[in-house]
Amino acid sequence: MSKLIANALIAQGGGPTMVINQSLIGAILEAKKFPQIERIYGAHFGVKGVLNEDFIDLTDIDNKKLELVAQTPGAALGSTRDRPDEEYCRKMFEVMKKYNIKYFFYIGGNDSADTCRIVNEEAIKNNYELRTIHIPKTIDNDLLVTDHCPGYGSAAKFVVQAFMGINLDNASLPGVYIGVIMGRHAGFLTAASVLAKQSEADGPHLIYTPEKPFNVHYFVRDVKAFYEKYGRCIVAVSEGIVDEDGTPIVSKLAKQVEADAHGNVQLSGCGILGDLLAETIKSHTGINRVRVDTFGYLQRSFTGCVSEVDAEEAREVGKRAVQYVVGGDVDGSVVITRKGKYNIDYKLVDLTEVAAKTKKMPEEFFASDNMVSKKFIDYLKPLVGELPEIGRL
Amino acid sequence: MSKLIANALIAQGGGPTMVINQSLIGAILEAKKFPQIERIYGAHFGVKGVLNEDFIDLTDIDNKKLELVAQTPGAALGSTRDRPDEEYCRKMFEVMKKYNIKYFFYIGGNDSADTCRIVNEEAIKNNYELRTIHIPKTIDNDLLVTDHCPGYGSAAKFVVQAFMGINLDNASLPGVYIGVIMGRHAGFLTAASVLAKQSEADGPHLIYTPEKPFNVHYFVRDVKAFYEKYGRCIVAVSEGIVDEDGTPIVSKLAKQVEADAHGNVQLSGCGILGDLLAETIKSHTGINRVRVDTFGYLQRSFTGCVSEVDAEEAREVGKRAVQYVVGGDVDGSVVITRKGKYNIDYKLVDLTEVAAKTKKMPEEFFASDNMVSKKFIDYLKPLVGELPEIGRL
Repeated sequence: MSKLIANALIAQGGGPTMVINQSLIGAILEAKKFPQIERIYGAHFGVKGVLNEDFIDLTDIDNKKLELVAQTPGAALGSTRDRPDEEYCRKMFEVMKKYNIKYFFYIGGNDSADTCRIVNEEAIKNNYELRTIHIPKTIDNDLLVTDHCPGYGSAAKFVVQAFMGINLDNASLPGVYIGVIMGRHAGFLTAASVLAKQSEADGPHLIYTPEKPFNVHYFVRDVKAFYEKYGRCIVAVSEGIVDEDGTPIVSKLAKQVEADAHGNVQLSGCGILGDLLAETIKSHTGINRVRVDTFGYLQRSFTGCVSEVDAEEAREVGKRAVQYVVGGDVDGSVVITRKGKYNIDYKLVDLTEVAAKTKKMPEEFFASDNMVSKKFIDYLKPLVGELPEIGRL
Repeated sequence: MSKLIANALIAQGGGPTMVINQSLIGAILEAKKFPQIERIYGAHFGVKGVLNEDFIDLTDIDNKKLELVAQTPGAALGSTRDRPDEEYCRKMFEVMKKYNIKYFFYIGGNDSADTCRIVNEEAIKNNYELRTIHIPKTIDNDLLVTDHCPGYGSAAKFVVQAFMGINLDNASLPGVYIGVIMGRHAGFLTAASVLAKQSEADGPHLIYTPEKPFNVHYFVRDVKAFYEKYGRCIVAVSEGIVDEDGTPIVSKLAKQVEADAHGNVQLSGCGILGDLLAETIKSHTGINRVRVDTFGYLQRSFTGCVSEVDAEEAREVGKRAVQYVVGGDVDGSVVITRKGKYNIDYKLVDLTEVAAKTKKMPEEFFASDNMVSKKFIDYLKPLVGELPEIGRL
């Protein structure tokens, strides 16, 4: 048992999720148990808070308050999209030195894992003793190695409950409905909509993800076919769909694209892709009632729609992160492993295995270019948990 | 006690709500109690189903199944936006005669109330004995006479829970956020977002409704002011906002506008207004991170987000509708009255008082052109009911 006596720092990076604070609180509560961790600091707005010495001392906050934070969406410490370079890290270590911080936990997606990798590599170069753990979260479910990502199950649940209602609404007043779901490179969240489908006639009838090339001609043909069969058609589509050449469909349309510090194009927070797709259907099919919603930020921040399994696992990855670093001189990313029907375990893998890499949906999760497979449904169900029961006449 | 022995017909019109089926099931269960109502028919797709003789016999469906339907969003019978004229009504009466239907319940908004008025007037002209009751529902909360409308509380709850999360998400990654809410002529649903605001610094910071003229210049100025004060700004805006001349802001932008049978312009089901507003902020303020979501159909159909009070009242208006017609030869619209803090009662008013009329938010519900008053909050709170608790560090 290593007895590195020092302070811990925890921060949150990237887009928040509905359970990101479960990981935060899980880590804090666990860290409180170990005497070698003296103070637990939180950095406001991710790594930016380290640079700015913008810390909150979390050590003595009472558990009741922490538990309330755990069940609250949004990043309670604030987040950032900053990715530190060499100079940024050097400054971070100066601040960390000042505060005697030697345990560093960063909750985030693949960009935040990459931040951990950079910080870790720079720490070694700078001879700064630091145990760095990446605690995973992302609604996109696109981290490598791990079976699935904390945050995904709850966002998926929101998407399913939305499509369950949309399916019934659209059955009441038939037409074409297109729902645009978050997901730059991976279609996991869009694909989750399939759980709303309880019969062949239920939507979503078509599911388009970034993994499969999107062809406008086939899209029009397939919507038309379902509309002719059922008098309606419901489509779930990822914001990040691309054509045969890998060009994002939305880039073809958007006059200006905004990129963040990681070079990611802005696909979220506007309705342009949805409106274009709706227009395409209207003009090519003559169908009059075509509606489109871009689910936007609701799917990652809606208050009061959480998968219990997701919440538990998000808590657990936070706890495990602390257990790993008090157990020895390690750095890494916490991943979830699954055995059998739904037996979960956790392990630590090298940061380079996860950092800045994107997992896509494997081929076996597709039944066709526009529908997911039974295997994907089996994969998804335990992550989403209980769903409201639907009654029909 | 009138003993008109005949069959009853029930149908649903207009946009569905999360509790519209509570009213349907409330009416069915109540109608089953009275021997003078022999069969209870449901018309598929509103008045269209009468014309098409597209009926379902609801009399013998077991209560367990009905209860499950009650808690399901969407119009279980299907809906329509058809508004019958003289000829349409004449055909309806032929069908009703064939099925010995003399009790007619129509669940819907002000357009459906107008359908009831027309049907009722034509029935008198045609000497067709019919007791016609309009059972209110609308997420817009814009029916006259009634204190509030079944369907509003649940949609309001969705909007509040969305903005609670959005506020936390936006606090994590600060910027400008614009949420576009349904509401053609009345701002009740948009205004409901105010319950997400627990402190001065919380969003929504600005609320724009159709009742107050929208001025682009002031809009930019006010967003900028909040952004300078808090480093972020959250805006709730009705799809139906108009300028000083009463011209819808969206009409100025949309090249083509689609109108339904009632002459309503399509404001829902596309992201155009939101995208324009976001573009305006970006180009006039230089603020980089501006996000917009158009809440769309989720706010009226999301599965699993219901106000308990709303569900109960929606059930009750259905029951009362039946009680009125078995009690005497009456026609009318069921309205809710409120006394004191929250004492509710129901009464029947003349169809002409409600039909095709729109209630707007009264002046006392506004604190300014872009914020609602304490009086509105007091009005709203009991309708929405319990909200998730939020924790902050």
